[in-house]
Amino acid sequence: MGKNRLEAFSDGVLAIIITIMVLELRVPEGEDFGALRPLMPVFLSYALSFVYLGIYWNNHHHMLHTVHRVTGSILWANMHLLFWLSLVPFTTAWVGESHYAGAPAALYGAVLLMSAIAYYVLQQAIVSSQGQRSVLKRAIGADWKGKVSPALYAAAIALAFWKAEVALALYVVVALIWLIPDRRIEHTLRELEGRP
Amino acid sequence: MGKNRLEAFSDGVLAIIITIMVLELRVPEGEDFGALRPLMPVFLSYALSFVYLGIYWNNHHHMLHTVHRVTGSILWANMHLLFWLSLVPFTTAWVGESHYAGAPAALYGAVLLMSAIAYYVLQQAIVSSQGQRSVLKRAIGADWKGKVSPALYAAAIALAFWKAEVALALYVVVALIWLIPDRRIEHTLRELEGRP
Amino acid sequence: MGKNRLEAFSDGVLAIIITIMVLELRVPEGEDFGALRPLMPVFLSYALSFVYLGIYWNNHHHMLHTVHRVTGSILWANMHLLFWLSLVPFTTAWVGESHYAGAPAALYGAVLLMSAIAYYVLQQAIVSSQGQRSVLKRAIGADWKGKVSPALYAAAIALAFWKAEVALALYVVVALIWLIPDRRIEHTLRELEGRP
Amino acid sequence: MGKNRLEAFSDGVLAIIITIMVLELRVPEGEDFGALRPLMPVFLSYALSFVYLGIYWNNHHHMLHTVHRVTGSILWANMHLLFWLSLVPFTTAWVGESHYAGAPAALYGAVLLMSAIAYYVLQQAIVSSQGQRSVLKRAIGADWKGKVSPALYAAAIALAFWKAEVALALYVVVALIWLIPDRRIEHTLRELEGRP
Repeated sequence: MGKNRLEAFSDGVLAIIITIMVLELRVPEGEDFGALRPLMPVFLSYALSFVYLGIYWNNHHHMLHTVHRVTGSILWANMHLLFWLSLVPFTTAWVGESHYAGAPAALYGAVLLMSAIAYYVLQQAIVSSQGQRSVLKRAIGADWKGKVSPALYAAAIALAFWKAEVALALYVVVALIWLIPDRRIEHTLRELEGRP
Repeated sequence: MGKNRLEAFSDGVLAIIITIMVLELRVPEGEDFGALRPLMPVFLSYALSFVYLGIYWNNHHHMLHTVHRVTGSILWANMHLLFWLSLVPFTTAWVGESHYAGAPAALYGAVLLMSAIAYYVLQQAIVSSQGQRSVLKRAIGADWKGKVSPALYAAAIALAFWKAEVALALYVVVALIWLIPDRRIEHTLRELEGRP
Repeated sequence: MGKNRLEAFSDGVLAIIITIMVLELRVPEGEDFGALRPLMPVFLSYALSFVYLGIYWNNHHHMLHTVHRVTGSILWANMHLLFWLSLVPFTTAWVGESHYAGAPAALYGAVLLMSAIAYYVLQQAIVSSQGQRSVLKRAIGADWKGKVSPALYAAAIALAFWKAEVALALYVVVALIWLIPDRRIEHTLRELEGRP
Repeated sequence: MGKNRLEAFSDGVLAIIITIMVLELRVPEGEDFGALRPLMPVFLSYALSFVYLGIYWNNHHHMLHTVHRVTGSILWANMHLLFWLSLVPFTTAWVGESHYAGAPAALYGAVLLMSAIAYYVLQQAIVSSQGQRSVLKRAIGADWKGKVSPALYAAAIALAFWKAEVALALYVVVALIWLIPDRRIEHTLRELEGRP
């Protein structure tokens, strides 16, 4: 089975997820800028989720680049990832409309955590399908981002019950970790691990 | 006529169907986890339908793999399949929002049954377009899953009026039948039928 | 400019139009089959529009097959067609929710009429881009369907104010004209026109 | 990294943005043409935004045509552009439902201005990735449209607080500037700049 349709289907689902989130930005009743104020939390959580889905699309793209043969487990691991990502519009809207309450902030992190786990499962399915000389395994390397993110999500979920803003700040931090190019950090990590 | 646009269009429609279902998970009024409780049936029926549409996408993908020439009857049989699948978000939402009432559970099965019939019609359109040496015909083999599923849907529809939970359990069973790899069962069936 | 992205974009828009129509099938309040009765007009108008969009997608597919070079006028004529087709979900919902009232039935036909005109304009843009030996021009032939349909739409719009059901019946007739293979009729027309 | 998935993803997002806008055209309560009157502003703003998104899709298409290697900055500049364009359905609906009030008309222009800036940033990211002999840089030329549009958006935003209709008229003018072929103007500009 070729990977073109897998990519096309994933692109379609991700494009729709990222776009239907904006439907939660409901047209305000008023006609002045004051009417926009209650929408700010919805807008900010939309912007954060947009960045997260962009990161997922970007990484998914790179990861599938190394795939040649799509196995049944890759296909279903991919579906599993799309399932959790499809819940992002729901948690995004709840965070925004509750104006940063605790439970929504925790659930937002829980869906991100499940998505990260699903991404890891997909990664492992691809690596194991490629056997000993897996290109993806070498490309991932130490995968410190992939290891730090779930820990930060878990911390954020716990902290959300204390102060939701702290949890949301942590989600922003994780997004920045993935966005900012990290050659120096990766270089350091490589040295620590004795790799070239 | 090439099959690329047929695949692209079907992928697009399936990706949209699978994703707009999540719009039925409406943001709850409350701001604590208790507010999520009435959403559980909607979430569970969403998850089940997500799996069903994943199975359809997967099988559709494999089936079209054997097609070289897209005839008019293949094109319209494909449209007919997409029509029934497009009703899945509606029945999914009704099952969820009615908290597993009888009529919604029966209608959910009826749409699955019509989709299965439409899938069978598409399969026959492809087989007959390929003539005597149809690759698809050999690939399908005894097609016991394709034969058992409609019978289970019909049983579930009848049982839904007695106890909706039994019908829904049957839909889960059919999904599992398609998900779980069945080499042993197929091997047995092959032996029973005297095929290698 | 290649035509791949034009096809991909048109497929995307048509797939979304065809699928978001189903969002108008709102989950009923009740939990028995009686609750579905008021939805029947919405369902039937959805089914009719699904067939119309399927016909458009199918014909659009065949027409673009003859295109090699996408000019600016082809691109904008295509956008113009997509614009009118994007209004079909709105008129479909109005026809359904008004339970076949006169004005919605007339507007439904008006949007079909504008789509037919936009399709004709796109066809002419392609023919004129291909010059004297246009493949599309020969393929269209007498184009009796393309000539009869607007006349029937116009008649239906006028009749809608008298009896909406007659207008809707005419829309069904036009859909059938496009669906039913018409070799015999085309053969006859060819003979009448003295073509082989 | 190839550009096919970048194009496919952008096409998907643009196709969805353009199509979900029509969901704001809500089915009227009444059943006669009078019920459509309050929808006219929504319809007109939808038509204007449809044209804008068509122009963006068209130009995006041409611009990516010159790209061979997709860098990280191109990818994120593209995401940034899609983010601002994804807000168009929201501002379109607000303009329409407020029946051309001042604040919505200003916000509509602000999103168009941010989109124009994001487009410019993407253009620069592509030009700088192509180095000295950038094909895109030569293709853009003086880019007078790209320079005039932001100025007109800014003027419209300021004027919106005085008279919203003037702002909306300016948005129509900018759309026309992009739609109307401008060979003569470009010819003049070329002469002024001493280019052939």
